[in-house]
Amino acid sequence: MKSRRDRSDLKAFFEPGSVAVFGSLKEGMGLGYGMVRNLLQFGYSGKIYPISPSCSGEVLGFRAYPAVTDVAEPIEAAIVITPPRTVPGIIEQCARKGVKAAVIVSENFAEAGGDGVKYQQQLVDIVHRTGIRIIGPNTIGVFNPASGFVTNPYLIIQDKIRKGGIAYCSQTGYVGLAARPWEERNVPISKLCDIGNKCDVDESDVLNYLADDPQTKVVAMHIENAKDGRSFMEAARRVVVRKPLLILKAGRSEAGAEAMVSHTASLAGNEQVYDAAIKQVGALRLSSWEEYWEIPRVFDSQPLPKGNRIAIITGAGGLGVVVVDVAVESGLTIAKFSPATKKRLRKLSPRLGSNPIDLGPVLTVKEDPFSVQREIIEAVLEDDNVDCIAVSVYTGFDALIAPIARMFDSLKNNKSKPMAIWIYGMKLRVLDEMLRQLEERGLPTYLDFELAVKALGMSAAYSGVHK
Amino acid sequence: MKSRRDRSDLKAFFEPGSVAVFGSLKEGMGLGYGMVRNLLQFGYSGKIYPISPSCSGEVLGFRAYPAVTDVAEPIEAAIVITPPRTVPGIIEQCARKGVKAAVIVSENFAEAGGDGVKYQQQLVDIVHRTGIRIIGPNTIGVFNPASGFVTNPYLIIQDKIRKGGIAYCSQTGYVGLAARPWEERNVPISKLCDIGNKCDVDESDVLNYLADDPQTKVVAMHIENAKDGRSFMEAARRVVVRKPLLILKAGRSEAGAEAMVSHTASLAGNEQVYDAAIKQVGALRLSSWEEYWEIPRVFDSQPLPKGNRIAIITGAGGLGVVVVDVAVESGLTIAKFSPATKKRLRKLSPRLGSNPIDLGPVLTVKEDPFSVQREIIEAVLEDDNVDCIAVSVYTGFDALIAPIARMFDSLKNNKSKPMAIWIYGMKLRVLDEMLRQLEERGLPTYLDFELAVKALGMSAAYSGVHK
Repeated sequence: MKSRRDRSDLKAFFEPGSVAVFGSLKEGMGLGYGMVRNLLQFGYSGKIYPISPSCSGEVLGFRAYPAVTDVAEPIEAAIVITPPRTVPGIIEQCARKGVKAAVIVSENFAEAGGDGVKYQQQLVDIVHRTGIRIIGPNTIGVFNPASGFVTNPYLIIQDKIRKGGIAYCSQTGYVGLAARPWEERNVPISKLCDIGNKCDVDESDVLNYLADDPQTKVVAMHIENAKDGRSFMEAARRVVVRKPLLILKAGRSEAGAEAMVSHTASLAGNEQVYDAAIKQVGALRLSSWEEYWEIPRVFDSQPLPKGNRIAIITGAGGLGVVVVDVAVESGLTIAKFSPATKKRLRKLSPRLGSNPIDLGPVLTVKEDPFSVQREIIEAVLEDDNVDCIAVSVYTGFDALIAPIARMFDSLKNNKSKPMAIWIYGMKLRVLDEMLRQLEERGLPTYLDFELAVKALGMSAAYSGVHK
Repeated sequence: MKSRRDRSDLKAFFEPGSVAVFGSLKEGMGLGYGMVRNLLQFGYSGKIYPISPSCSGEVLGFRAYPAVTDVAEPIEAAIVITPPRTVPGIIEQCARKGVKAAVIVSENFAEAGGDGVKYQQQLVDIVHRTGIRIIGPNTIGVFNPASGFVTNPYLIIQDKIRKGGIAYCSQTGYVGLAARPWEERNVPISKLCDIGNKCDVDESDVLNYLADDPQTKVVAMHIENAKDGRSFMEAARRVVVRKPLLILKAGRSEAGAEAMVSHTASLAGNEQVYDAAIKQVGALRLSSWEEYWEIPRVFDSQPLPKGNRIAIITGAGGLGVVVVDVAVESGLTIAKFSPATKKRLRKLSPRLGSNPIDLGPVLTVKEDPFSVQREIIEAVLEDDNVDCIAVSVYTGFDALIAPIARMFDSLKNNKSKPMAIWIYGMKLRVLDEMLRQLEERGLPTYLDFELAVKALGMSAAYSGVHK
């Protein structure tokens, strides 16, 4: 068995120079065909070798081969979506050909019981015998926006996915590109990875790889179990000293643990042990699926706060009270503004000066609401008693999008303290466009004020652990 | 002081036959003008009397009067957005004119301190002396889609808000029509009400009114404090014996309680006392702002479950494990399917039979995925061991919308057990349209699987308390 550090060299999975594709090459509907199509769609520039015993000629401009051993050039990676019984043979051939990394997308292995268990064991044996590495089976595999390498065989109606700093490592195909509006939400991605049944590469390998990955600024991990507790803790620690690690542990309940078995044949660990381990290594534990997707954005673009004192700027007073609760429950304290800030705010309106700042009564009486909002945000950014800022911005109609974007562009010192933005209004299209534009500017923007505040709480928690 | 039952006759606030509008009648920008415009926009068919000392002639086709006492006909309600110092005089005149109900939208009363406190006390005195009723001040007021009566003075770019069974009673203007995409989300509304500073009408009055309101099937209440604990508990109990009451209590933390004072001049109560009281009356406590907006939908259209056994149908296995945790944490148990159901499911695929049902491996191999999904949902609906069902449906692209809608239309017995639907995919517009169409069919549809499951948990909790 290789050492953990060698094991974590997953470069061939994320940026291979060449790839063999195993699966039906039938035009349009074939899943191997889909893989080739998706590689082209995302601009993968390596060499592609479609492999199928039943196909000759070309597939989307690439010469197809009956077997991988018929290819003269060396091949670095393989992606496989063929019936389970055929997979061990394919992997054996790949190993013989010198392929380093294989992503097995096919389902019906250990998670299905029966023969699937046997086929998966054969894969494990091949790994041990030959040194080929496997992600999967039963996975949607990986996506790397930088190299355009993608292993998803299904129709993906998005291709301009933003390159950024968030790595999602998950134990579900839902992390694949067809399940979420990555493009329209402008999510800044470094790597996506579904570890599937983990017959070889597991969560610890991926963590070690992401710890060293220069593109990745924050790691979000969804796991059902850790295959090897000690390795997992070591890998998690390696991540945490370099960048934040957010963990969503599924299978907390007894019933959830049972459900895991039929999903990825994972066995449950003790819930308290996970909790203690996550805390001990300095990772942050997420409490919901939504947090898993929404919280990492604040780490991609924003600086870490120097402390846990939050300023809350809200356009709806009642929401101020609601999110103060959330802030406190997230470990933040409500900043006390300095006398200078209070004076500055009171000059804008006698109603201002306390925290949360309720914009409502101010905006309804001012000629230029955006210049007032900007002055308020700047006053708070410059207050030494404030470490992070949650800002709510009413975005009710189209005509507000441009001035709001301009307001954030004109902010002084807006990179000195982390900020999270909540936008609200009555038109989905307007909100979607505003969110996209603010994300484009590196401003983490939320459609839920509580999530924005929780994200800042997580940011302060990481900052506190890693001072 | 009137008795609580008399006090809760709020008919004049929600369906007045005539209304006087106080506020700037300046065309376009005037807030009184905005109120008249909005009344017309939502189809209010009562008489409208714009009142302004500085205006004569017509406003949007209605004759304007310098004072309410100049109107010859009787007037039932008033809506007021004028400077605070002018409001007590206006309300005094309204009372003299016989107006029964006044909504005071103006801000800067008790919540602002200073003279505002004095003006608010003058309002209280007028109420006691004359019997006129007031909602507010510092409120966005009410909206009743059935009568078209709306008190919001601001621009509202939506008017086809669906009549339905959800009443939202809140202590924030965010409940107003300009802050959320009510129309595009197709939310079924019976009444909206912001109780503001509660100088007269308070949460107990509104609860008593909604308990008797035939349009309201479920009450969602956001409160910072209860003005009178005993009345609140009595009113809550009156609601709960008739329909579910969901409560979001803000100001849980000490800092949150402080923030309340500057928001609506509310004083904090003891947190444990609220918790015990909510439980004792059989109301359901919500834990987030998002739950407040999302959970009530399941009560509007779905039957109550007979027990707490949930079936989970998921297209992403990993999500099955995630929501099993949420189900258990929401008080649900994971249903054990009957032998007959297991047999039925296994006939569809050998991989089926356990709960959660993972559609993934089934759909990828079937010719007509929707007929399989339909059969699975029907099998589960007909299983006596199942009380409620969470269904996930992949809605990745336009072409799926119509077959998914047809699939739900063709379900047998789909009104026998509560169902909540999670849709997911990669295009916001497709998801928005699918959600709208399913909501149109009375199927509560979510963009977050955890919320769908929590909603069913709340439904079972209410059902359990009120058997």
